[in-house]
Amino acid sequence: MIQKYVCFHLLLHTNEAISVIIEKENVHIMTEGDRTMKVQTIKVELAETLKAKPNGAHLDFGTIFTDHMFLMDYKEGEGWYDPRIVPYQSLTLDPAAIIFHYGQTVFEGLKAYITEGGEVQLFRPEKNFERLNHSNDRLCIPHIDEQFALEALKQLVEIEKDWIPTEEGTSLYIRPFIIATEPYLGVAPSKQYKLMIILSPVGAYYKEGINPVKIAVENQYVRAVLGGTGEAKTAGNYAASLMAQEVVSKDGFAQVLWLDGVEKKYIEEVGSMNVFFKINGEIITPALNGSILQGVTRDSVIQLLKHWGLPVVERRIAMAEIAEAYESGTLEEAFGTGTAAVISPIGQLTWEEKDLIINDGKTGEISKKLYDTLTGIQYGKVEDPFGWTVKVGSN
Amino acid sequence: MIQKYVCFHLLLHTNEAISVIIEKENVHIMTEGDRTMKVQTIKVELAETLKAKPNGAHLDFGTIFTDHMFLMDYKEGEGWYDPRIVPYQSLTLDPAAIIFHYGQTVFEGLKAYITEGGEVQLFRPEKNFERLNHSNDRLCIPHIDEQFALEALKQLVEIEKDWIPTEEGTSLYIRPFIIATEPYLGVAPSKQYKLMIILSPVGAYYKEGINPVKIAVENQYVRAVLGGTGEAKTAGNYAASLMAQEVVSKDGFAQVLWLDGVEKKYIEEVGSMNVFFKINGEIITPALNGSILQGVTRDSVIQLLKHWGLPVVERRIAMAEIAEAYESGTLEEAFGTGTAAVISPIGQLTWEEKDLIINDGKTGEISKKLYDTLTGIQYGKVEDPFGWTVKVGSN
Repeated sequence: MIQKYVCFHLLLHTNEAISVIIEKENVHIMTEGDRTMKVQTIKVELAETLKAKPNGAHLDFGTIFTDHMFLMDYKEGEGWYDPRIVPYQSLTLDPAAIIFHYGQTVFEGLKAYITEGGEVQLFRPEKNFERLNHSNDRLCIPHIDEQFALEALKQLVEIEKDWIPTEEGTSLYIRPFIIATEPYLGVAPSKQYKLMIILSPVGAYYKEGINPVKIAVENQYVRAVLGGTGEAKTAGNYAASLMAQEVVSKDGFAQVLWLDGVEKKYIEEVGSMNVFFKINGEIITPALNGSILQGVTRDSVIQLLKHWGLPVVERRIAMAEIAEAYESGTLEEAFGTGTAAVISPIGQLTWEEKDLIINDGKTGEISKKLYDTLTGIQYGKVEDPFGWTVKVGSN
Repeated sequence: MIQKYVCFHLLLHTNEAISVIIEKENVHIMTEGDRTMKVQTIKVELAETLKAKPNGAHLDFGTIFTDHMFLMDYKEGEGWYDPRIVPYQSLTLDPAAIIFHYGQTVFEGLKAYITEGGEVQLFRPEKNFERLNHSNDRLCIPHIDEQFALEALKQLVEIEKDWIPTEEGTSLYIRPFIIATEPYLGVAPSKQYKLMIILSPVGAYYKEGINPVKIAVENQYVRAVLGGTGEAKTAGNYAASLMAQEVVSKDGFAQVLWLDGVEKKYIEEVGSMNVFFKINGEIITPALNGSILQGVTRDSVIQLLKHWGLPVVERRIAMAEIAEAYESGTLEEAFGTGTAAVISPIGQLTWEEKDLIINDGKTGEISKKLYDTLTGIQYGKVEDPFGWTVKVGSN
């Protein structure tokens, strides 16, 4: 193994005189002016042999992983410690670890893109770490240092940049996640955790470009309810969704559209995406009510629409209202938004045995424009007026 | 390591001539009459050195594990295979394993008791494996062979019988669980699983005998909702419950009482137990509505009450009805039921800032009789008219 230490000084952003007062392993307690800081360096252990890279033209989602991963541990009383980039490897955990029994875990999903000029960039990554901490709050998991985690991610992506596929629409999927590792069968928050980041090269979500999908409105199963964990990006929400997805996929539907868990009337999300409707020129999306995920793509779409001067509104929407708009001919477009597909046009919505064919089953004008603009920004092809992209390896 | 093979023929319960047609490793394909059977033997690898047993008088819950555990794997196309008892050891899993990201997992909890005569017995263990499969259905996990799993459990407990503590109220807690192990980041049921059973010696739930607890009615957080996973014993329900428990325990409450996720009016469960109320001589418990766990102790309590000729009814109960009964002086008793505490009397119920003191904060007559009878049956001290206990090592 090649051992290499990369010194990373998170909290040092002034030119003031710095005194190191304690230094052991990769933790440094320092003073800067009148502040005392704990500075951690990320230890890097590079893999001796590298795996063969896959063919970028034939990539699936989430089956191939890169040569390295990031890890950091947490222990009550000690906080987060031992940040390290190591060869991608199996985890060794006690069978009584809380993650296996009580699902105390949160995760995020984002991507690294390569531009035509060969630059590596991320799309609003700070939003993902902000949301990770929001999820942590709901799951009783200690906060992470968002800035430190982002720097760790950038360092990992920089090491793995040759893994970013260059084919049209491909990217490097990034999965940060935290798991509760204490071996304890009592139902209580863990006193030990692991924060990890793993990377997976992924193909274009739509192999033949953006393409409308068929969605079934779910009337039986519920993904989340107000007071539950719907707003958190946590395992249990996805476990709860598996059955509904299994049932509808047998009938050729790509995803389900989730209604609220209380009245089963109001629209929440579609599959693992947020959802938008264009009715009579106005673009509407369900308001964040506490059981809907605060999508980064959702927020970007709202900002873009406003930037273009288009009317966009966040409010409660009943499924019946969508059906009425369809009947009256004012339902012009529908689309999902998420990291995986970016924009996923909905060509058909099936509710109570009735098929609503939207925009003749074709991709709508707004859906297309949003897709082109967002992917354009992500791949550095169009101007980024919002400062959403973050370069990797440039600092 | 001492290698030992224990041959276990699950499906052979006739004296007919048996022909072995295929035999490789520990899988045997056999014919019996006109049936073809797949018979698996449990491979046993005993630990070379045994851990020191803890002091039975000072046992906590779920922190100490025995010398061995049971494991069995599943692969799509192959089914469940390679059942084995091995030394208790860490699990090695890919960081992309579905359990870490989408919480596809189910579990059970039961106990082994030692009688005064030194016999080892289980309490209705077949109900736990039946419920495990019920949970599997909701979580899209393949069924296990309930009878085979029970035999594996009995074999494991037989090997570990010296770990069963003998002090009053102590027992060996048994945790069967299944985790999704396929390394895949797509949201879909795993194609690989592990079924495991681990054992932990546990102390009496109430160190000073049965003792009433203070319970807070939860108005903000929701554990489960109809259409969700509330009826399944799965990680996400417990992850969702952590925050509410953290909040109320700061105010000295032992547990929360969960209301329904839709109207937040109707009583569902208390903490991780089912709940019963005695009002004006009648014993009432929430009906199984799809979001309440089908407790084995709950079912045993209902059967016992009926056996005693006491009126017991399963129906929807509003929290307001409990408060009204309290005001009118007809709320006579309240108690939770579960494997851990068996019967947990509720001495105080706090709802919307109001304290309902039940039976002067003392253990009620029915609660006491149920506790004595159920624990009496479990420890072989009183007659078992229902045939609930299952002996280990007697066959």
